[in-house]
Amino acid sequence: MVSGSSRVANAKLAAKIMSADDAAAMIRSGDTLGMSGFTGSGYPKAVPLALARRIEAAHAEGTPFHVRVWTGASTGPELDGALAKADGIELRLPYNSDPIAREKINRGTMEYLDMHLSQVAPMAWQGFLGKLDIAVIEISGIRPDGALIPSSSVGNNKTWLDRADRVILEVNRWQNEALEGMHDIYYGTALPPHRVPIPLVRPDDRIGEPTLRCDPEKIVAIVETDSPDRNLPFAPPDACANAIAGHLLEFFRHEVAKGRLPASLLPVQSGVGNIANAVLSGLIDSPFDNMTAYTEVVQDGMIDLLEAGKLRMASATAFSLSPDKAAHINDNMAFFHDRLILRPQEISNHPELVRRLGCIAMNGLIEADIYGNVNSTHIMGSRIQNGIGGSGDFARNAYVSIFMTPSIAKNGAISAIVPQASHVDHITQDVQVIVTEQGLADLRGLSPRKRADVIIANCVHPEYRDALRDYFDRARMHSYGQQSPSLPGEALSWHQRFIETGNMRA
Amino acid sequence: MVSGSSRVANAKLAAKIMSADDAAAMIRSGDTLGMSGFTGSGYPKAVPLALARRIEAAHAEGTPFHVRVWTGASTGPELDGALAKADGIELRLPYNSDPIAREKINRGTMEYLDMHLSQVAPMAWQGFLGKLDIAVIEISGIRPDGALIPSSSVGNNKTWLDRADRVILEVNRWQNEALEGMHDIYYGTALPPHRVPIPLVRPDDRIGEPTLRCDPEKIVAIVETDSPDRNLPFAPPDACANAIAGHLLEFFRHEVAKGRLPASLLPVQSGVGNIANAVLSGLIDSPFDNMTAYTEVVQDGMIDLLEAGKLRMASATAFSLSPDKAAHINDNMAFFHDRLILRPQEISNHPELVRRLGCIAMNGLIEADIYGNVNSTHIMGSRIQNGIGGSGDFARNAYVSIFMTPSIAKNGAISAIVPQASHVDHITQDVQVIVTEQGLADLRGLSPRKRADVIIANCVHPEYRDALRDYFDRARMHSYGQQSPSLPGEALSWHQRFIETGNMRA
Repeated sequence: MVSGSSRVANAKLAAKIMSADDAAAMIRSGDTLGMSGFTGSGYPKAVPLALARRIEAAHAEGTPFHVRVWTGASTGPELDGALAKADGIELRLPYNSDPIAREKINRGTMEYLDMHLSQVAPMAWQGFLGKLDIAVIEISGIRPDGALIPSSSVGNNKTWLDRADRVILEVNRWQNEALEGMHDIYYGTALPPHRVPIPLVRPDDRIGEPTLRCDPEKIVAIVETDSPDRNLPFAPPDACANAIAGHLLEFFRHEVAKGRLPASLLPVQSGVGNIANAVLSGLIDSPFDNMTAYTEVVQDGMIDLLEAGKLRMASATAFSLSPDKAAHINDNMAFFHDRLILRPQEISNHPELVRRLGCIAMNGLIEADIYGNVNSTHIMGSRIQNGIGGSGDFARNAYVSIFMTPSIAKNGAISAIVPQASHVDHITQDVQVIVTEQGLADLRGLSPRKRADVIIANCVHPEYRDALRDYFDRARMHSYGQQSPSLPGEALSWHQRFIETGNMRA
Repeated sequence: MVSGSSRVANAKLAAKIMSADDAAAMIRSGDTLGMSGFTGSGYPKAVPLALARRIEAAHAEGTPFHVRVWTGASTGPELDGALAKADGIELRLPYNSDPIAREKINRGTMEYLDMHLSQVAPMAWQGFLGKLDIAVIEISGIRPDGALIPSSSVGNNKTWLDRADRVILEVNRWQNEALEGMHDIYYGTALPPHRVPIPLVRPDDRIGEPTLRCDPEKIVAIVETDSPDRNLPFAPPDACANAIAGHLLEFFRHEVAKGRLPASLLPVQSGVGNIANAVLSGLIDSPFDNMTAYTEVVQDGMIDLLEAGKLRMASATAFSLSPDKAAHINDNMAFFHDRLILRPQEISNHPELVRRLGCIAMNGLIEADIYGNVNSTHIMGSRIQNGIGGSGDFARNAYVSIFMTPSIAKNGAISAIVPQASHVDHITQDVQVIVTEQGLADLRGLSPRKRADVIIANCVHPEYRDALRDYFDRARMHSYGQQSPSLPGEALSWHQRFIETGNMRA
């Protein structure tokens, strides 16, 4: 499987190199596994597949075999897809975007704990999630002194290595050797009452070490691999995404003109996806220079901004690049190496740092209601799409919290703006701006009723605007209270209609 | 009105002493006023009454007169009550508990912006709330050098004094002179990109100055008063409150035994109210010593804990004491002076500090749903009760976030646990424990469906348990998705039934 020289430069550890099957044989049913992986980057690619084979064999013999799987965020088909397909996951946290796992969750056959990404490591340390048996971590190499060179994501790897009883490493030679030195692993966290200020005041600051520590006695297996991360290509921005980006750039220009944002903006956080990527692309032609990003993932649009000289640097916890862009980075590592920093997700998403830096948070949504409560996770209130991810870490602590969405979905069968959100991930206090291709609603300083006026006027698709206005007008007359007028007998009727007819329209 | 020697020890400022009517005459219709006041403590008591008289006179002549009122949190009848009665408030932020103002808000004749209390000062600095015309601040004295000695609350006073064009001071000689030195006013905040770590690592730390700064040129009027804060007495704990406190203390003992909490616990945050007070009282007989509080307000129960030697010190932004307890503190100031610290609410509630200290957050609720989404603000989804206050600042960043409530209200016509929350202030990720007199639901590490099982089994009143179980069972069969099973056509029917019949019961 592996050609060329080994990347395991420590002799004692090299003695632990074995096959993925032998490593997977060390995992028992009932174990809790802490795996690497964040947005399709840096997840282990051989051991989970070997484990899935073991689980399928056990199940074929009628023997139960289930594990609990903790990661950074989403991973790839070789991990979540394979283990879910094998019916091997009892509980999954903190984020999933794998379609097979999603289907099992929504059928009720897999437990899924959807967490704030900044809180996974602290809650694990606090003992709230139970015991961690085995860490399975992809790295890009082992130095002669035994230090581990991280791979294309950091995620919760530091915490899994610290907390697990035993460690299995995958050393992936597909990962660029020049990743070394790009990471910043902070070892200053602690449990209260021993926590201290995190000494980061600019997105550029390095506050930790370039490598991961691991007690060599805990390392029970090392598996060498040569497998690519499986990130998906982005769709090119369409007219809708471009319209959203246009409204948002106009807002930024206005805020700079009013003196409410510096001319280089503030550190940008951008959710993952095509619209977020379109906004980043739009910044290339903007008047803003010397920008920075303090965010979860480095996306294609940020690479373009770096090359255009608009973005000075980007800090994240993982790459989330299309295959073409990943190849481009690998070919131009000399340029990118010192302009990118990958940190533990506890740090990339830390409320303390998001608030201090004053991030501009830009996240997508599934639906918002007329008051600006945002549902980021549950379709029709019950069916999980992906998860809250880091959106809550950023939205509540941002300088300004922006949510973006096309105004309709499924060819108009779904309105992204509804009378009442069927599930709430972001409350009105954490949502200052909503943007659709129809326009932008600036909700700062407005009471709920005024928020509703602006959202209905600026963001709703024309096909749904009259119905929403009618609902709000009747709620203004008949509601139990008038702070946030609502009609509970009707507030979720659009969702019920969609479930029954496949269409929210009356 | 004032007897004895003046507390305005600066001669230049003493020349600005005038009557409340003369001071109120400087306020124009359309002004935005930044007033002191937090939970019935330290609010101006003479100028708002004089302003209310002016407004009533103007209205009697058919002249419109409205102001926008910003405060720390709730105030007293002389401020919110009088101005609301005069129909003089166009917009109120960030918190209200005055019954007259509440009624106007819920009739739709007053705008109310319900904010995270930690975010008021930063959003004002960021320019998101508009311009601040006049600060009206109660203090307990002015030193010879012109420094202002704060009163029984700090709230947003620093920010209002910094940001307002003009300043009116009320110097209240009713406030104990020994308050001097109890405050810690931090002057290290800034707008990004210039924010730095806040250097507080223990609740005891003093990081600022004992007095408020104010450019004397901006001070246009000083009014001397001698009026008590109007805090309400607490009800003595009833059987329900004692049962809730008992479940919670058992939980703390269990967590200490498991090594998940230190023997002196972690800094306690406690919402305002009778149940919170009962929990604090319960801690007197607990095995926990050397405790601290890092919270919004100092309540009666904390005073008892300090005197019992269980609590080492308490940090807050305001007093919220019954008249008896306030008198008791005044009589024993030598004991209490160095055991209490009052800070700006931006610091008392700061996410950075709440997370660093690892606060144990204990807050009340109006309703929770079977997944543990919490509604803290809106009765039947539309009628505002008070506001979110600091609960969001603490719940999201706490070491463990606890919500407490009696399982029923209005003699059983309302269940505190419902199929779906009619409004959401705290999402499932921010709610780790729910306690009613029925029992405690420890939700840590559980997926939504398991959360529902535990909440229904442990927290719901027997009168509602079967109905809730039946709803959940049917949702398990018929829901669109099974991550958080729900039936949108029925999820808010309990609220609709209450609105129509005055009873949630079928």
